[in-house]
Amino acid sequence: MFVLLNNKFIDRQDSLIDIEDRGNQFGDGVYEVFRIYDGEYFLLDDHLKRLEFSLKETQIDYNLNQSKLKDQLLTLAQKNDVVDGGIYLQISRGSAARNHPFPEQTTPTVLAYPIPVTQPKEQQQNGIQATLYQDIRWLRCDIKSLNLLGNVMAKQHALDYGVNEAIFYRDKDHVTEGSSCNVFIVRDGVIQTHPANNYILNGITRLYIQYLAKQLDIPIKEEVFSVDELKQADEVFISSTTSEVISVIDIDGQTIGDGQPGPVAQQLLDAFFDHKDIQQLP
Amino acid sequence: MFVLLNNKFIDRQDSLIDIEDRGNQFGDGVYEVFRIYDGEYFLLDDHLKRLEFSLKETQIDYNLNQSKLKDQLLTLAQKNDVVDGGIYLQISRGSAARNHPFPEQTTPTVLAYPIPVTQPKEQQQNGIQATLYQDIRWLRCDIKSLNLLGNVMAKQHALDYGVNEAIFYRDKDHVTEGSSCNVFIVRDGVIQTHPANNYILNGITRLYIQYLAKQLDIPIKEEVFSVDELKQADEVFISSTTSEVISVIDIDGQTIGDGQPGPVAQQLLDAFFDHKDIQQLP
Repeated sequence: MFVLLNNKFIDRQDSLIDIEDRGNQFGDGVYEVFRIYDGEYFLLDDHLKRLEFSLKETQIDYNLNQSKLKDQLLTLAQKNDVVDGGIYLQISRGSAARNHPFPEQTTPTVLAYPIPVTQPKEQQQNGIQATLYQDIRWLRCDIKSLNLLGNVMAKQHALDYGVNEAIFYRDKDHVTEGSSCNVFIVRDGVIQTHPANNYILNGITRLYIQYLAKQLDIPIKEEVFSVDELKQADEVFISSTTSEVISVIDIDGQTIGDGQPGPVAQQLLDAFFDHKDIQQLP
Repeated sequence: MFVLLNNKFIDRQDSLIDIEDRGNQFGDGVYEVFRIYDGEYFLLDDHLKRLEFSLKETQIDYNLNQSKLKDQLLTLAQKNDVVDGGIYLQISRGSAARNHPFPEQTTPTVLAYPIPVTQPKEQQQNGIQATLYQDIRWLRCDIKSLNLLGNVMAKQHALDYGVNEAIFYRDKDHVTEGSSCNVFIVRDGVIQTHPANNYILNGITRLYIQYLAKQLDIPIKEEVFSVDELKQADEVFISSTTSEVISVIDIDGQTIGDGQPGPVAQQLLDAFFDHKDIQQLP
């Protein structure tokens, strides 16, 4: 496997970073996970736009437009013959003697490499179970940062509990998102999801679903929903770059709808593949 | 410089970690900063006890008692001839193919190396200025984890603003701590600091100050204070392993007390050095 590390393509086993990389000591960096279908990056420019947002908000001094990153990402996928899979990219603030403030002179560390991703067909067909988990993460979840310990602990809690995913709630009136996905409910034919603000990551797949819903003439609104509204919904589904669209059929033992993936999720999943030649979201 | 990396003492320039170390990708690790005075670790066992707490709370599978870490830390300081300085230690969950859940088979990555620390005499003599900063960090600040982006951003904000430190507040009635220190106020001869709960790191120097206050017969209480109480205090001071005790003489342009380091902070600082042969806190 070839890894892109600071403008060089190197072997996986040689891919090492300095102990004082700020990614390693402060989680001081941002990341993206790209999906590749049929050898093509899916919504590449939308991911790069979000990356730019994360870089700006964390004041990491990396000019995406003046970099060769986009070309390098394309080359990386080619060199690794990625046809159906993913690419992980992370940019940290760089390496410097450990100290909280931004270092005066350092170059961001840019790392990218292929990760195995396949369509989760079985989960899409049968749905998954989830558990609720209190959202105690920081209040800038809109930044796709490396500070992921809260997400990691939630995800592990779900697995220990015997289910696939943790759904975060701030309080009983405020469900936010999943440990690594966005969450949607369907009530009376209307799709509802959390507004894109500081409480959630504005998923690229989330945006794509909003686009698809419009194509399908399914009403969709961005509005906070409660734990009760989640559990009483006709359908619940999650979205992410790697999950695409997966129905949640059970939350903490409460069956959602009739306990089967619902028709709206199915329509969106069909449309997902019908429209996936889209180059960029409008 | 010698670095301790996974039971080996290696040269600084060879000190590299894998790109998929979970410290680097999730901030999935914990750390300590030790102070060495006169060639001796200061309150080493208290730091190790807190490290054990952080490991337990993050479920990092590292048995401190069965490890040789304590001996290795002593050797590390000796090999590097550290007489007056610091040691940074971090333990991450280890390296594994990137995925949120805890990896099934991995060994924690243990990293330690000397960092330059000297007594901040000028700041102790003259005091520092601070600015208030909204505390938007996660609600497990009692874990000394590598998820430090919120702390980094606060500290950088303070420097950009032209002052030395950021003091966090959740809301106007709830001051928590500094970007890398605990915060104390003095009112009518009584020292007050935030209770040791999930909102703050329970600093070893914070605990030492509680011990010193008892030795000096200065009343000290753990109770939340407000922004107004902070700004109207007779004295404000911070504590940390590297700062020891430093008075805050100005917060967002509001002079604290008479704008000079106060007598209680000075008493504590004197006592700090008088008692520093203490092996372990009671």
